[in-house]
This record gives sequence, C-alpha cells and structure tokens, in this order.
Amino acid sequence: MTVRVAVIGAGIMGADHARIVSEELAGADLQVVCDVSEASARRVAEENSAQDVSTDPVAAIRRKDVDAVLIASPDATHASLTLEAIKLGKPVLCEKPLALTSEDCLAVIEAECAIGRQFVQVGFMRRFDPSYVDMKDTLCAGKIGGAIMMHNFHRNVEAPAGFSGLMAITNSAPHEFDAVRYVLDAEIVSISAFEPKRCTSGACNPVVLVMETSEGQLITVEVNNNAAYGYDVRAELVGKEGAVSLGGLAAVRVDRSLSSSVAYAADWRPRFHEAYRLQNKAWIASITTGVPAAGAANAWDGYCATAIAEAGARSLESGEKTRVDLAERSALYDPAGTAA
Amino acid sequence: MTVRVAVIGAGIMGADHARIVSEELAGADLQVVCDVSEASARRVAEENSAQDVSTDPVAAIRRKDVDAVLIASPDATHASLTLEAIKLGKPVLCEKPLALTSEDCLAVIEAECAIGRQFVQVGFMRRFDPSYVDMKDTLCAGKIGGAIMMHNFHRNVEAPAGFSGLMAITNSAPHEFDAVRYVLDAEIVSISAFEPKRCTSGACNPVVLVMETSEGQLITVEVNNNAAYGYDVRAELVGKEGAVSLGGLAAVRVDRSLSSSVAYAADWRPRFHEAYRLQNKAWIASITTGVPAAGAANAWDGYCATAIAEAGARSLESGEKTRVDLAERSALYDPAGTAA
Amino acid sequence: MTVRVAVIGAGIMGADHARIVSEELAGADLQVVCDVSEASARRVAEENSAQDVSTDPVAAIRRKDVDAVLIASPDATHASLTLEAIKLGKPVLCEKPLALTSEDCLAVIEAECAIGRQFVQVGFMRRFDPSYVDMKDTLCAGKIGGAIMMHNFHRNVEAPAGFSGLMAITNSAPHEFDAVRYVLDAEIVSISAFEPKRCTSGACNPVVLVMETSEGQLITVEVNNNAAYGYDVRAELVGKEGAVSLGGLAAVRVDRSLSSSVAYAADWRPRFHEAYRLQNKAWIASITTGVPAAGAANAWDGYCATAIAEAGARSLESGEKTRVDLAERSALYDPAGTAA
Amino acid sequence: MTVRVAVIGAGIMGADHARIVSEELAGADLQVVCDVSEASARRVAEENSAQDVSTDPVAAIRRKDVDAVLIASPDATHASLTLEAIKLGKPVLCEKPLALTSEDCLAVIEAECAIGRQFVQVGFMRRFDPSYVDMKDTLCAGKIGGAIMMHNFHRNVEAPAGFSGLMAITNSAPHEFDAVRYVLDAEIVSISAFEPKRCTSGACNPVVLVMETSEGQLITVEVNNNAAYGYDVRAELVGKEGAVSLGGLAAVRVDRSLSSSVAYAADWRPRFHEAYRLQNKAWIASITTGVPAAGAANAWDGYCATAIAEAGARSLESGEKTRVDLAERSALYDPAGTAA
Ligand SMILES: [Mg+2]
Ligand SMILES: [Mg+2]
Ligand SMILES: [Mg+2]
Ligand SMILES: [Mg+2]
Repeated sequence: MTVRVAVIGAGIMGADHARIVSEELAGADLQVVCDVSEASARRVAEENSAQDVSTDPVAAIRRKDVDAVLIASPDATHASLTLEAIKLGKPVLCEKPLALTSEDCLAVIEAECAIGRQFVQVGFMRRFDPSYVDMKDTLCAGKIGGAIMMHNFHRNVEAPAGFSGLMAITNSAPHEFDAVRYVLDAEIVSISAFEPKRCTSGACNPVVLVMETSEGQLITVEVNNNAAYGYDVRAELVGKEGAVSLGGLAAVRVDRSLSSSVAYAADWRPRFHEAYRLQNKAWIASITTGVPAAGAANAWDGYCATAIAEAGARSLESGEKTRVDLAERSALYDPAGTAA
Repeated sequence: MTVRVAVIGAGIMGADHARIVSEELAGADLQVVCDVSEASARRVAEENSAQDVSTDPVAAIRRKDVDAVLIASPDATHASLTLEAIKLGKPVLCEKPLALTSEDCLAVIEAECAIGRQFVQVGFMRRFDPSYVDMKDTLCAGKIGGAIMMHNFHRNVEAPAGFSGLMAITNSAPHEFDAVRYVLDAEIVSISAFEPKRCTSGACNPVVLVMETSEGQLITVEVNNNAAYGYDVRAELVGKEGAVSLGGLAAVRVDRSLSSSVAYAADWRPRFHEAYRLQNKAWIASITTGVPAAGAANAWDGYCATAIAEAGARSLESGEKTRVDLAERSALYDPAGTAA
Repeated sequence: MTVRVAVIGAGIMGADHARIVSEELAGADLQVVCDVSEASARRVAEENSAQDVSTDPVAAIRRKDVDAVLIASPDATHASLTLEAIKLGKPVLCEKPLALTSEDCLAVIEAECAIGRQFVQVGFMRRFDPSYVDMKDTLCAGKIGGAIMMHNFHRNVEAPAGFSGLMAITNSAPHEFDAVRYVLDAEIVSISAFEPKRCTSGACNPVVLVMETSEGQLITVEVNNNAAYGYDVRAELVGKEGAVSLGGLAAVRVDRSLSSSVAYAADWRPRFHEAYRLQNKAWIASITTGVPAAGAANAWDGYCATAIAEAGARSLESGEKTRVDLAERSALYDPAGTAA
Repeated sequence: MTVRVAVIGAGIMGADHARIVSEELAGADLQVVCDVSEASARRVAEENSAQDVSTDPVAAIRRKDVDAVLIASPDATHASLTLEAIKLGKPVLCEKPLALTSEDCLAVIEAECAIGRQFVQVGFMRRFDPSYVDMKDTLCAGKIGGAIMMHNFHRNVEAPAGFSGLMAITNSAPHEFDAVRYVLDAEIVSISAFEPKRCTSGACNPVVLVMETSEGQLITVEVNNNAAYGYDVRAELVGKEGAVSLGGLAAVRVDRSLSSSVAYAADWRPRFHEAYRLQNKAWIASITTGVPAAGAANAWDGYCATAIAEAGARSLESGEKTRVDLAERSALYDPAGTAA
C-alpha cells in the first residue's frame, strides 16, 4: 500500500517535507502540493515530481486521491486544517505549533476524543533525532540514576527583525518544552522567565527559562535567536548518578591557521535532517499500521507545548514564577495505548 | 518508474541491503531475495516484504520482473554474477570486492568495455559517507592546501579465528585503498607492508601499510581487525596548509563513574548506515537517469582496490616495497564522463 | 629577598598550601605551620620542611620571622586572623570565604581603609586558572562581542552528610559568584534561587541560581555537590557575536570496552592545582613588589561573594528574586589602582 | 640547601631555562648565565636576576659558586661541555641532543662509567609531560593490554629555510624516539624512512618513519616541520585490548563565525611549559637527593636517540629498512638502579 500525501504549504518547511515524501520515503507518494501562491505550489511540485498542485487547502485535503495530510502552512491555519482532516478521518502530520492558542489546541483534542481515535501527529521532530532518543534511552537504562535537572540551549544565527523575547518563548521554546517532556515523561508545572536587560532594544533578545516538573525536577532553557555564531542545540540531562549530553556531530574537523575547528550550520536543516526523515517515515508507517508512531508527539503534546509557552509569556511580563495549568488529559492520550 | 531489485545473498550484508531497498528508498521495489539457503532467502524476504524468493542467483538475475541486481553473495561469486547481469544489460550494485583477483576484475571491465557502457557500481559505500565526502570537499575547496599525506585507521572488535595479516590486507584494507583513491583522485603506485612480530600467533594480526601515490603523496594505513575496544574508522588528510580529519559522531556523551565517555559500536553498521542508504539511493537514481552515480566506485575502482591488495600481500611476504602495476585504464572510466 | 610564610591551618587546604610554598615557589620559605592540633601542624611541617610549628595562630602571625600569612584555618577564624595580620601590617592570603558574614567582611575592609592600603588577597584561585583567564581575555579581545549571559556549573562527587541547598549557596557558589564578577567586571544585583523538589531529603541538594548583573547580563549557576560522576567545573560565556567555554583538559583519552573516555578527578585538586600554584606565586610576587597581584581577589571581592551568597540564601527561603544590596565601595578598591 | 645553577646558552631555550630556574623552582638559584654573546648573557641574566654573567662556558662550569650546569648552548657544544662538568663531578641537565653523533654520546657514557655514577640528565622533557606520563601509567596499569603499536605525529608551523627531511630525522624525530622508548620500555631495532616525493623542493619536507622494537611492536612517526596550521604533537598507543591517546589540552573553546574552535600554539612552549618546569624541578631534587630523577632520560637514552636518528638518516638515503645497532649497555644504566 502506498500512502498518497497532500503537502499543505510550499514555504521552506513545506518544500522540505515535499522533498522527503518524494525522495526519502518508501511507501509514500507526493500526491498534491498546495499553497495559496500557485507559483510556489507549482515550483515545489515540479522539483519533487508531485502529481498535482492546488491553491485551496481544504479542497486538497478533501481530494479522494489524498490519503493523508502534511500541514506546513502558516501557523494560524494549522488548527482549522487539522480539524478538516480529522472530520474526513484522514491522518495528519502537523508542523508545530498545533495551534496558536491552547484553546484552539483543545478544540483539536475534542475532535479526536469525539471520534475516540488519534489522527494527529505533531511535528516535534526531535523525538526522532537519534541523539535525543539516545539520551532518553540512557536515562531509561538507568545509567545516570533518576533525572533531577535538564539544561537546554537553543541558538539560532539570527532572528527576523522585530523578533522579541516573547516570540522566543512562543515560537522557539516549544521545541524545548516538548523535548523535555519527551525525555523526562513528566509535565512542566511552573515557569519563570528572565531576559537580560542589556538587550531590550533591537535585534538581541535571548530569554532564560527555569521550569519545575511534576516529578520535582528543575529545567533550564536558554533561547537565543540571535546567537550569531551558528545554529546550535544543546541539552544535558543530569541524574543522581551521572549526566548525559547531546553529542557533537561534526562530519570533519579542520586544522588550519592556528585553530582546530568544526563547523556549525547556519540553520536547523543539517542538524535535524535525519530527525525529519525518521519522523516522516514513522508517520507513514503509522498510517499503514493504524497505530500511532511510538514516541511521536500527539495532539495532547501539541497542546502542552502551547500551554507552557502561554505561561512563559505571562511570566516574562509579570516577572513572577507562573503556574502551568493544564486541562485534564483524556484517556485517549494515556501513554499505555490508544482508546478503542 | 519503480526499479525492481533482486538482492542476491541473504547473509548479514544481503539482509541489510534488502531492508534498505524495502524500507529506506523511494522508487525501488524489493522484487526477489535469492540465497542458496532457501530458509535464509525466505526469512529476509518476509522481513522485508519481498515479492518472491529464489535459490538460483542466475535465474534470479534473468527474471523479467527484475530490473537491477544487488550482489551481496559470497565474494567468490561476485565476478561471475556481475558478468551475468552485464550480459543481460542489467545494472549491478556489487558488494566489495568486485572479484577475488585482479584478473577477474579485468574480465568485468572487458565486458563493460565491449558494450561501451558502465553497468557496475561497486559497494565502496564510504564514498557516500558524509564525513569522507566532507573531507574531499574540504580538500577541493582549497582549505588545507595541496594534499601531501593521508593517515587511515581501520579497527574492528574481533576477527574470525584464523584471520591473518594477509587477510587484513585482502579483505579489510581495500576499503582504505578505495577511500584514499576517492579522496585524493590519485593512484597508489607502491606499497610496503609491516606486521608487528609480537602478534604472529593466535588472534592478533594488525598490519601497517605505507603507500605512495602517483601524485607523490605518502599514505599510511593501519588495519587492526582485533582492536577489541570497538569499531573505529579514522582518517586524516594532511595538506600543505592544514589538515582535515573525520569527525566524532557520537549521539550522546555520558558522564558517570569518574569518566566522560562516548560509545563505540561493535560493528560497522551504525557507523556507515547512512553511507549505505545514500549509496543505494544514488544507485537507484543512476538507473532511472542512466548516468552513473557521481562519486561512486565503478569497475575500474573495484579492479584497483584488488590489485593494490595483491601488491600489499606480496610486500607482506617479501618485506620489500612493492610496485602496484595496473592495466591501462579504458576511456570508459575517464573521470570526465562515460563513453558513448 | 625571601618571603617567610606562616601557614595557618594544617587541614587539607593548609597542607596543600604548605606544599606549594615549600616546593613550588621561588622566593618563599615555609617558616611555620600552625594548627590547633599540634600533631597535624607537625606532620605538615615535616612533610614540607617547615622551620617550625605552632598551635597558636595569633602568636604565629606575630612572629618576627614571619613576613606574610596564609590563612587556611576553619572559616570562622578567617576574619579575626586577617584583622590580626592587618594590624601588624603583614600581607595575607586568606582562603575563601574572607568571613562568614558580610558584616565581618566589612570589618576587614574598614581595617584596610583605615590604613589606606590593601593587605589581603582572597583565595579565589580561579582568577589564576589559565582557562578562566583565557575566557576573560577572549572577551576583552572582542572575539565574542559584548557579554550577555554566562552559564556556570559546579559539580562535586559527594557532599558531606547534611550538606543542604543552603550550604551549596553559602559554601560552594561563592567560587562561581567570584568567577562571574572576575570574567565580566560587573556586579551581581539580583539573585533567584531554585531547588529541585525531588531531592529535598537526604544527600541530594543541587540548586540553580539565576542572577542579573549591573550591566544587564543574565547569569545561571548550577551547584550540584552530589553530582556523583566526578569533579566538574564548567562555564560558558555568551556574547553578542559568539561564545567561549572552558575547555576539556584531559591528559589522555582511553579507548576500551566499546567506549572512548576521559577521566574526571574525584576532587578539585587536579583541576585547579595550576591555579593554586600561580595564585600563590602572584601573591609572593606582590609582597616583593608591594603592588597587589593583577587580577587577584581583594577584600572587596571577598565581601561581594559573601553578600551575594547571603542574598541567595534569602531567595532560597522566600522563593523570590532578591536584590543584592552592597555597601559603597571605597576608592581603595577602584580597579584603576590602589589609593595613596 | 640551595642549588646554584649555571645556565650555558642564552638563546631561546637557555632564556627559558633561566626563567624557570629563577622564577619557577624552589631550592635553586640562577648563579650565572653564560653566552658567547655577552649582550645576550646580560639580557637574560637581568631579566631573571642572575648573580653574574659569563662568556666562557668552561670557566662558568668551573666556578666554585656553581653547583650544577644546565646546558642549552648550540648542539655542537653539548658533549664537550657535558664532559667538562662530569670531570668536575657536577650534575648536568643537557638539552637534547646529548651529542651530534652516537660516537660522541658514547664518550659521555664512558666518562660516567669510568666514575661509576650518573651525572647527566638529558632534556627529553616529554618524560615529565603529564599526558605522556598518564599514557605510560595507563599502559602499566593494564588498561589497554600489552602494547602492540604506537603512532606519533610531530608538527611544527614552519621550519627554517633549507630544513630537509634528513634534518627532520636528526633534529625533530629524536623527541619521538625517546618518547616511544620511555612509554614502551623497549628498544628500537629497525627503522624505515619514507618521504613524500611531492615535496622534495623548497620548504616542504615531512617524513614518515616505521620502526620495530625489541618487543616486536610497530611504531610510526610522522615528522612534519612545515605543517603550517600549528604546533601539534600527537601520540596514540595501541594495545591488545584498547588504546590511549594524548588528550586535547585547550584552555577554552570559542564559538563564532559558524565554527567551534580551539587554538593551536605557534611553537612548543605552551604545549610543554609544564613538562619543562617539572623536568627541571626533578633535576634540582635529584641533585639534593643524589638519586637520578625517576623516569628522566640519562646519557644512555641520549645515545639511543642519536643512534636511531643515524639509522633513520641511512634509511632515508637507501630507501631500505635499516637496523639500529646499539653498543652494549653498561650496568650503570640498568633500569633497576644506579651502580655503586
Ligand atoms: Mg519542527
Ligand atoms: Mg562495503
Ligand atoms: Mg579556593
Ligand atoms: Mg627538549
């Protein structure tokens, strides 16, 4: 069986997903590429030998020859397009965020719960990154004792003009929130946001977040979207008997000019290209088997990331430690399995 | 267009290739798995949803529903099966070695030259390993000046009983010979083999090889098939202005028990799984386009690796520096392109 | 001129200082070793060929044949012994802390200011550690742009029974406070303390501190006195254009048992032995020249570290961000030089 | 007791030794600095507060107020000055080489044997480098099994004009020969020298040496005096169960401009400054105790390094593997202890 995929959105993320579906996956066909810009849709479709193009996402989702939907359109459209797919019973891989607000995330959850089945995988691809998986495996194998702290660093070369500390929390930090929840299997219950005063003007706006989990662990996150020196994601998990860190993954080391160096990429693609490939492969397999991909982020995970970001935004404004109040989790999202 | 592949050989390499064809590649179908052991063929076929099984490699190659042949059967069968495929005009990906002797390699070359077209890609997968590719790119970009030396280290955990220094040269070192030729775009013209006397008995038999290239460069290779500590492949290319080394690729670093450590794998698969995937992807693409995969090893490269190993074996026996005498290279293998 | 030194305290720190004075320094003599335990004093004196022993620290300080005093006695005695030495006009190297309370630190400052000269160097030895010095030099050379964040990790194998998060702040964190102040040339103006709830009982009590500086920078500190895996001090300074981290300093790397590892020491001595040697060498030189050692911690620095720790302790109790209110700094401690 | 030292030679090495004697050692006085250039002698003497200067090395050695002699004058003078000191019964620390020829080394050995006591320590300072010491300790502790191979890399930024592959063997490689003999406690019995033909003209002249030891081990050495990228000394010792490598010793790591880098020094001094200090400290201690410094190179070691270099030079000329024929070792140099 071949899964026929509609990719919604032909921007940088959509183009990359179209390429993965077309070139990197067994058992998937790139059926249609959809974008409000027909030119964009057509260019990405041609580059990746898609069957067809569309400028109407709802129509694309509804096509009879589309089995599954990969949503990589602008963030504001994620929730409504996801709901459309659920209504048709079609599986969705939705780029993060699942929705702009936790309320809209809950609407997706309600739609799944009404049917009693998960349709949505959220594109927190780090859950498929071999180094995060290895970190979690190291913890679960008992090699570092029980987890007590986790330190996370998220650095981009440069943010768009006007990107603020607030946006660092709502746009970038969710990847960190989800990675922490994935590795620790714990909820985040409070968040305290800090911003260096030195950088309030202009292009410089890192934030430091300190979080507590339901298991009594402490988490720190630095989000630095103007780190300048390179795309750099780091994490260290500290247990009672040891610690585990994401490794260095440089292909080569170069010695020249009194320096021994390894390269940073300019953006996330080289760092996480394997994670995206494995994520999308697991998604296709889950459609074939009918069982959600092990370890993947579901709608509940998408909701949590957004809800934590909302609490972080309030903390940044108030300067106070802020509780993360979550809705009650439906049994549909119980880790043990899916509901009937 | 989907390429229907016969995988010949269902041992450890054949099984891995069957999995890659079935699970990791777009545009390829695993049509038949062939092994002299029907049970092995059937097991690998089932694990990878192959269409059919066979115990007769020649029959498998001749099947109408087979477009291309991936040879991973015992080394002694490589040349004759490759010739069979060439006779039928079917493209071949042949695991190394292309043949047990340089004479048999030349027979394959003659078969291709008689037709005037390349059919054979040899499975020197390191040419698709991102770190070797990056090393070559670093050289070609002029970052280290002209190449003058290359140091190579090939270490396995443990060799089968009876594995000797001679076998290290004929079985393991060819990967190094080909990596050097790939990175440097130069021929190896002499070889001197050394063996530590301490280890002539029992399971311990590393060799050190010193080679000269057609461009006046010096190459060293250590092959240590009983290195015990892990599977470890290293290389450093030294230029007039700098040096470039293969990077460390550990997913995580673990701190415990007064030690900070990264893991070695027990065999080559984790180290080179991406290389195999990209190699096979490039092979499938070359079938679709009709153009040999850029950077891939062809029959000439397969011949050279075997011829160098033969000279190395003679050097180990004589204790003398030994010339590598190669046949004349047909224009079919000119780097610039393929003959008409 | 040879400086005749009295080492007060023959515990683990005092013994090490006695060894350094005796064996590692040109221009210094170990004149007397003093400890309330005569046996301890005698053992350390004999091991290091001291001229004499004493059990009375005040008498030892007053000896005519003692030119300078190195205080490594219990923390509660630091301030009064330092004041005794100042009264006599003898230079002091006082192990941290300068005093148990900021009030007592201020008494030392007042004594110096009354005379109008610095007599005291505080044993914040990291200011002489080549890696911290290199970090500061990298910042000052403009290689990473203006500093905006600094992350610090202080990990010990195991704390004594009963060691608490509070003690982590008052006993261990001052090394971090001083390192931050040294590297950044900035004051710490607020501190927020966090403790993982998971570890409130028994032997496990890390703390995470978030601090703001007078220059608007954000600082994080993890103090983890039961890190189990080894003695490990890390720091990363993040600037607007790059970052600089303390390097790994392993003498060797060992490959065995499917692992590539470097060793951690069990305590601080191997990590900082060079820092102590250079610190003490600089102290002896400052006595000879009469000019305080460049970069060394003075009484004001000792006061600041203690005052920050007091604010941190209050924050840990209140759960609130807490201001660090410092006394006014006398011109005697102006960075430009010493007062007349 | 204070050892009064004459430093013979006020060039780059002599100036550094004068500084170490003056500033870094307890129990030593810099009595006289001697150089044929009075200006040089005077400059170094003043910079390091020496008591006196001299332009006559023999007279300096004979001075009543000189207890011990540190020879850092031009290589051609080493043997005769060492003999002069032995004649007077004064201990010597002689920079490598002990003599320009193995014959002259043997003359020093004969002088010691005639008296029946060792007077000479040769300045192979790597025996005091913590990383080489740690490598040897790792081997002796059985952590890597019996040693079977050792790989050594010696790289300088730039050699003086006219420096040849021959000079790489006679001037630079002796440090490697001695390091191998120190770590392995084995003799080198054969040597094969290789030179990349690409670099025979001009400033580029690396050599690769392959050696066999008395214990049946294989050794490789690359000497690359025009490596351009930095001063870089590497070594890896391969045992039957594992391997140990010299560690990276960078004080800091800098992240900027899409690169993560550590610095190389431009010459040997930062890399080995601790080795020189510890070497000279051990030398002073050996004078006080009358027992040769443990692990230090003696006259026999100096002879061996020169004899191996001579064999290497012959191998480079002949292109053949060349035996290293050593004189018989006097019992005075038995590892177990010194003769009566
Ligand atoms: Mg994503
Ligand atoms: Mg292969
Ligand atoms: Mg201290
Ligand atoms: Mg030397």
